[in-house]
Amino acid sequence: MTYVIKIGGAVVDSPLLLNDVLDRCAALGRPFILVHGGGKVATKLAADLGVEQTMVDGRRVTDAETLRVVTMAYAGLINKNVVAQLQARGVQCIGMTGADADLVRAHKRNHPTIDFGFVGDVDAVNTDVLELLLANGISVVVAPLTHDGKGSLLNTNADTMAAGIAMAMDAGAMIQLRFIYEHHGVLRDINDPTSVIGVITASDVDGLIADGMISKGMVPKISNAVEAAKVGINVRIQHTSALGTEEGTLVQ
Amino acid sequence: MTYVIKIGGAVVDSPLLLNDVLDRCAALGRPFILVHGGGKVATKLAADLGVEQTMVDGRRVTDAETLRVVTMAYAGLINKNVVAQLQARGVQCIGMTGADADLVRAHKRNHPTIDFGFVGDVDAVNTDVLELLLANGISVVVAPLTHDGKGSLLNTNADTMAAGIAMAMDAGAMIQLRFIYEHHGVLRDINDPTSVIGVITASDVDGLIADGMISKGMVPKISNAVEAAKVGINVRIQHTSALGTEEGTLVQ
Repeated sequence: MTYVIKIGGAVVDSPLLLNDVLDRCAALGRPFILVHGGGKVATKLAADLGVEQTMVDGRRVTDAETLRVVTMAYAGLINKNVVAQLQARGVQCIGMTGADADLVRAHKRNHPTIDFGFVGDVDAVNTDVLELLLANGISVVVAPLTHDGKGSLLNTNADTMAAGIAMAMDAGAMIQLRFIYEHHGVLRDINDPTSVIGVITASDVDGLIADGMISKGMVPKISNAVEAAKVGINVRIQHTSALGTEEGTLVQ
Repeated sequence: MTYVIKIGGAVVDSPLLLNDVLDRCAALGRPFILVHGGGKVATKLAADLGVEQTMVDGRRVTDAETLRVVTMAYAGLINKNVVAQLQARGVQCIGMTGADADLVRAHKRNHPTIDFGFVGDVDAVNTDVLELLLANGISVVVAPLTHDGKGSLLNTNADTMAAGIAMAMDAGAMIQLRFIYEHHGVLRDINDPTSVIGVITASDVDGLIADGMISKGMVPKISNAVEAAKVGINVRIQHTSALGTEEGTLVQ
């Protein structure tokens, strides 16, 4: 059994939540794959550097300057601090982007109407290197960047990378995919923390979007979760405090 | 035989020199360890972010803000672009700091008179992980950051990291240590590119410093080179165009 854990930008940005989830990662007692976001850190760095940001449907348009910003924020600041903090908890781990060991290869998104810039859609995951590292007791911390094999890094959604890695590794690996964030599951009412939806199935999704229970960044998250669940992966959307438990929302 | 190659900030900063050395790394035809500097990129980023920099004897005083800057520049921007560009040349490689896989553990420098801040002096190199990666055909690209095992990253001189890695791996590994930079070797006269000193031995160093032929950042470079040569490692200081040849200055 291998956990593929995705932590979002709000978790990365909160020392309290980040420490909590890293403690729980360490307590798993087995090598894992941790994919992190970091949009808030990137947004602040872009502002500090005077690099203007454009968002379309909750996705960042990534021009050359913004690619520099997210590479510094995701692969540098966040990834290496998470690695150092896991090492301090006795977790042997290595931080990677999709370019490292050719972990996730992608192509620049070809959108009919919007030029997203240096944004990558996933083509292939190098599961051999993941198996090599995990078999040698080394956990992997993944920053949400891919590469095109021609020398360019590409900005890629962290939920999509986590789901893509989980699906690529699935065969016989008993993957547990966890989307960890600041809420206790998918909520019927965003203002009521007790309104967790216990189970979401693919057929529920359109209705939840129509009712406004799933909106903004939750739409691609749920879509990635459902896609992974369809191939039989155990998928849960949980609060940091629930990692390792069966709490939160089961997606199937 | 394994090459441990260090490239300096001027090489990292020049697309022409960087492309040259990455072509030559790819042409080695065997897994290698490439340690990069990047001081010029960090200095520019610090200026863009308004983070004031203090240098003492050519070494950067690293306060908390500067540690963020060098983490973004070294581990993010430079390391990942070098990895992506090597992947484009068909070189399977992984980028690491000293925190990744506990590659280089260090302690915060305890200097009698100067507080260098978050600067690390090397304690231990995890050669097991280097051997695992190299044996599986994976080259390693190292950013000049270490960690203290307690959650903190530390800024560490790239020459020192390259020499430390070479010395830790030495036993039976036939290490070839190369300091690659923008000159054709150590020059008697910095303005005369033909004045390359063919061989430097430990006993020459004090005289070369007294004569002003070795100064500033060259002093620690030569000191690291001599230390590695003393334990029998083959050490050369070369131009980017000389990687894989016996040109440049032999240190013994």
